[in-house]
Amino acid sequence: MDIILVVSMRVKLEISYVGDEFCGWQIQPERRTVQGELLRALKSLTGEEPIITGSGRTDTGVHALCQVAHFDLTRNFEIKKIKSGLNFYLPQSIRILSAIEVDESFHARFSAKSKTYAYVFSTSDNALYVSRALYAPDLDYGKMAEAVGVLKGKHDFSAFRSLGSDTKTTVREIFDLSLTARGDFFVLKVVADGFLYNMVRKIAGTLIRVGEGKLDADGLREILLSKDNARTPVAPAHALYLSSVEY
Amino acid sequence: MDIILVVSMRVKLEISYVGDEFCGWQIQPERRTVQGELLRALKSLTGEEPIITGSGRTDTGVHALCQVAHFDLTRNFEIKKIKSGLNFYLPQSIRILSAIEVDESFHARFSAKSKTYAYVFSTSDNALYVSRALYAPDLDYGKMAEAVGVLKGKHDFSAFRSLGSDTKTTVREIFDLSLTARGDFFVLKVVADGFLYNMVRKIAGTLIRVGEGKLDADGLREILLSKDNARTPVAPAHALYLSSVEY
Repeated sequence: MDIILVVSMRVKLEISYVGDEFCGWQIQPERRTVQGELLRALKSLTGEEPIITGSGRTDTGVHALCQVAHFDLTRNFEIKKIKSGLNFYLPQSIRILSAIEVDESFHARFSAKSKTYAYVFSTSDNALYVSRALYAPDLDYGKMAEAVGVLKGKHDFSAFRSLGSDTKTTVREIFDLSLTARGDFFVLKVVADGFLYNMVRKIAGTLIRVGEGKLDADGLREILLSKDNARTPVAPAHALYLSSVEY
Repeated sequence: MDIILVVSMRVKLEISYVGDEFCGWQIQPERRTVQGELLRALKSLTGEEPIITGSGRTDTGVHALCQVAHFDLTRNFEIKKIKSGLNFYLPQSIRILSAIEVDESFHARFSAKSKTYAYVFSTSDNALYVSRALYAPDLDYGKMAEAVGVLKGKHDFSAFRSLGSDTKTTVREIFDLSLTARGDFFVLKVVADGFLYNMVRKIAGTLIRVGEGKLDADGLREILLSKDNARTPVAPAHALYLSSVEY
């Protein structure tokens, strides 16, 4: 037995969830949200109602393969029982992948070095892909894969954000950006030091215009430089996945 | 325009569906079934209520990547409009992948040369895999892949069936059988000229015992030869996929 007795402990969670079953990450009155369900499960398990801090919000419909969050407990709790205990109280559409004790310097949002999102296009309208990928059989994925490199690197991504959340700066660095074929799917992967609101969905939406032949790489660069977010359509939420958060 | 005027036409459908949203394939009063939903959509679209013949039944929870069915219409209907028309009336969890006119000699069940099923094991309890794969992180998949070959070929598969449906013979030929790693998953693929009731789920259930170290290849062969279906556990339905039907 490995019971850790401490007055207070910080716990890091890795969490997966099915986006379309919740009104996004953030807790809201009268709405079923991931943070709200987590808080309810934590209260049932530990009796405490701590603030649960996520690496960032996700919108309604957006899935998480591995979201990260942290919270503090004022009383000791056996860390080994947190994963199974939360999974017992949570709905099946939220699963805790891991729960570990971390140093108090760890912060789910501020300690993150980068985050990885995936936007999944499907070339088959199979029922099993509905609400998990965007059915888009006729796009020119070769052209999209070529053009998307334009957005790599450190830029002011004002053109690729929706208003509605405060941010000090609109400059972000995209470390990695690729569109690759995987079976029935084409997966747009974006790794960046941070993301503006709707940034990946606006990148995906604009990339669709490239795939439709309405825009080329030069046009994409021009939109980036214009900082005009009226020129970038927002792609649907249900094909977006928060893949991982890197610390 | 390609309007085909015939007194009667036979239509072949390729259909995908999410298994856990239906009480199986077969139409039943007061239950939501795939065949029942198809019939309702066909009536809305064409005004007719034909007998819809599937390649075989699937149980509650079992998914279809590509089920095949046929039906006859007594009045002409533009074939090109059947796929989109049915998809308009069907719930999102059933999608028609194709609808083509076929010769009256085609029969979804009797013309089938083989069928392919997949049973999907997952090594991650990610929320997105719940109801789509069996979470089994601790099995020895190497041993399972090795042992499963024993079942290949033409055998009396009495040991690997549940009672409850009539069949002339319990001899089936498995053309191909493999267990391969694919990302977070291990996929058991079975191609055979036909399947007894619960045959794949009983193969998967018994293979799990191999993965747990409770059975080896010789033991698996012995069970096959025993024809004793009390020795083969049935694995859960939600990880089983009807992948394709070959004609």
